[in-house]
Parts: sequence; C-alpha cells; structure tokens
Amino acid sequence: MKEKELDFELVSENYWERRREFLAISPSGEVPVLVEDDDVIIRDSSAIAEFLEEVYPEKPLISGSPQDRAEVRAIANWFDNKFYNEVTRYILGEKILKFYRNGGEPNSEAIRAGKTNITTHLDYIAYLLKRRKWLAGNEFSLADITAAAHLSALDYLGDVPWSYNESVKDWYSIIKSRPSFRPLLSDRISGFKPARHYADLDF
Amino acid sequence: MKEKELDFELVSENYWERRREFLAISPSGEVPVLVEDDDVIIRDSSAIAEFLEEVYPEKPLISGSPQDRAEVRAIANWFDNKFYNEVTRYILGEKILKFYRNGGEPNSEAIRAGKTNITTHLDYIAYLLKRRKWLAGNEFSLADITAAAHLSALDYLGDVPWSYNESVKDWYSIIKSRPSFRPLLSDRISGFKPARHYADLDF
Repeated sequence: MKEKELDFELVSENYWERRREFLAISPSGEVPVLVEDDDVIIRDSSAIAEFLEEVYPEKPLISGSPQDRAEVRAIANWFDNKFYNEVTRYILGEKILKFYRNGGEPNSEAIRAGKTNITTHLDYIAYLLKRRKWLAGNEFSLADITAAAHLSALDYLGDVPWSYNESVKDWYSIIKSRPSFRPLLSDRISGFKPARHYADLDF
Repeated sequence: MKEKELDFELVSENYWERRREFLAISPSGEVPVLVEDDDVIIRDSSAIAEFLEEVYPEKPLISGSPQDRAEVRAIANWFDNKFYNEVTRYILGEKILKFYRNGGEPNSEAIRAGKTNITTHLDYIAYLLKRRKWLAGNEFSLADITAAAHLSALDYLGDVPWSYNESVKDWYSIIKSRPSFRPLLSDRISGFKPARHYADLDF
C-alpha cells in the first residue's frame, strides 16, 4: 500500500484467539483483512493485492501484458505457497507462532529442514535475477514485495544466509532502502530481539 | 477451460521426475503449466486462471465488481492453500503421491488428521452456501471449480463424508452434472480404483 501511495492504518490481530468480532469480518479466521468501509471487506493477501490493483490502478504492481502479469502472479504465489510451506512455516512457525499460540517449544527438526530448504530457494531467486532486473521482469512488482516480505521476517530471526548468494543480497539491499520498506525495519516482535544486522541498510 | 469453451490438450507430467525438458518450461518444477505457444508459457494454477480471464473474457469465471472478484479469489485461494494443506495434502499426498514418487507407505496419522479436518472445512462450505447460491456469490465461479477439484480428487478415494452435510452434497451434485465436469468422472489413476459412487451423478 505504501508503494501505491495509499493511506492506511495497521491494526494487529492475534487471529489464533478467534475473537468473535474478528470472525465476523473474516469467517475463516485468517489474516490479513482489508477493511475499506463497513460494506467492503477484502480477505486473503493475494485477493487484497488484486483488489487494490483494480481499484487504484496508479503505481501498478502487477503491470504489463497478460503474460507479464501472469509472471508476477506465478512468482508471488510461489513465495506464498512453496517458500512459505518449505521455509517460512518451519522457521517462523516454530520459533514465533508456536510461542505466541501456546508457548510451545520449537521443533528443532522442522527448523533444520527450513534452513536446508532456504538455500535451494535462494538459488531460485538468483536464477531469476540472472535473467532480469527484478524477480518477475524489468519492473519492480508484487513478486519482489512478496519475496522480500518472507525474507525480512526470516531475517529478523537471523535465518537468512546472506553470504550464500551475492546477487540475492544485492537485490534485497535495494528493496531494503525503498521508502516503503524502511518503516518495517523498526518493527519489533515483543519477546524476540531482531538479528543485529536486521535494520542495517549495509549488512 | 471447458467452462470457458476453450480448446486444449491435456498432457500428463510426472513432475517429481524433474525431466530436463519440463524444467525448461517450469524452472520451479511445478504443475500445472499452460503452453499457449513457444513464447507464451504460463505457470501456477491461479496465474493461469487470471491469464485466461484476461485474454478470453467471454464466459467469465471471476466476474462482477472488484469486491465480487476479490471474494472469488479469496475463496479459491482458501481451497488451494488452507484446504490443500490441511486436507488434500494429508490424504491425497499420503495415499497417492507417496506411492508414485517412491512407493512409500502412507502415514496413517496424517490421513487421520486430514479426515478430521475435512469436516470443519465442509462446515465452512455449508456456511457459505447458506448465504449465497454459489460459493463466492450468485454466479458460478473459479471458487466453485477450485473447491470441486479438491473434493473430486478426495472423492475418488472415497474420503469425502457426503452424509455429513446435505447442502454441500447438493451443491457438489449440481457441479458434477455440468458438461465441463463430466469427463473428469471417467478419469482413472492407474493402480487406484475409484470409490464406487465416484462417477454417479446420484450418490
């Protein structure tokens, strides 16, 4: 939304508490939800992105020909599905969500799997960057935002091996210095200290 | 594609074999892939659906206002992510994919989890159908197709408890008799016999 220069207010929701008022706007109990007004409530991160793209077409983040747009979506979805299920869920899910949901101990085997998988996936990012300026083509897009969101969350925990791949690190460092991204670097998860380099533009 | 009255040819791919020729068109090794011609190759099922909707707008499957379209996407994504990860992956993944990939034995605990989760998820479908004719509104849409695709795959194995919810069964039985859906009922997975009622329009 910052990239599209839209005004918004962030509201935090502990969705696992399944508050009745929250379930009224998100019957499946999931985040994120975009509340435009009482009658326009949009759920699901991809559906929200597509909705914003249709209603506020200025500063497009899914742009170009139908084929270009398909590439943006395929890569954004790849991060939200494949990368999420093989990396983010294992690392963030075990270290942070478990703690918040029930104070459970992280499963070290799952964390190890996530740390192994991330290198293959960084290779995939490097493969894409060898062929184009941004992940889905020559324009900065929703694909870059989605990928950077996953990596930033893992980087908070110090779990991205940046030295593994120089081109991925360069791409991320350019995103990190975008005005839209900067405020995220001062976000803090209560109970968890960010990795020392988390907010550094030069890491 | 049948719903949109488009011509196509289905090609089966054992993606886990990671054939070099297949990786050339799908670098992440995933199915499905739509090959329009040598220069237009679209990956990712949601990206393919959006692409077809943009290029062939007749017979829309994501129609209406931006808000209506967001609802279609949110529900289709819910099935491809939440339902897939909590049901389809546990049941189909254990019973069929494991067999094909390495001949492994299904994990009965995972299958049991899938069978428990499906009832909560059928409740969600019933909740939606109480409020509207089709899953995402009053028009048949990509949301119905996505949901029916997951259920049909599970139904092949006899793992959908149809008696659990009458309204869900009625909705599925209408979809089952659509011309686009009928050919799927004669599909066979080699090595697995379909449940006795699988192809019955009256089940």
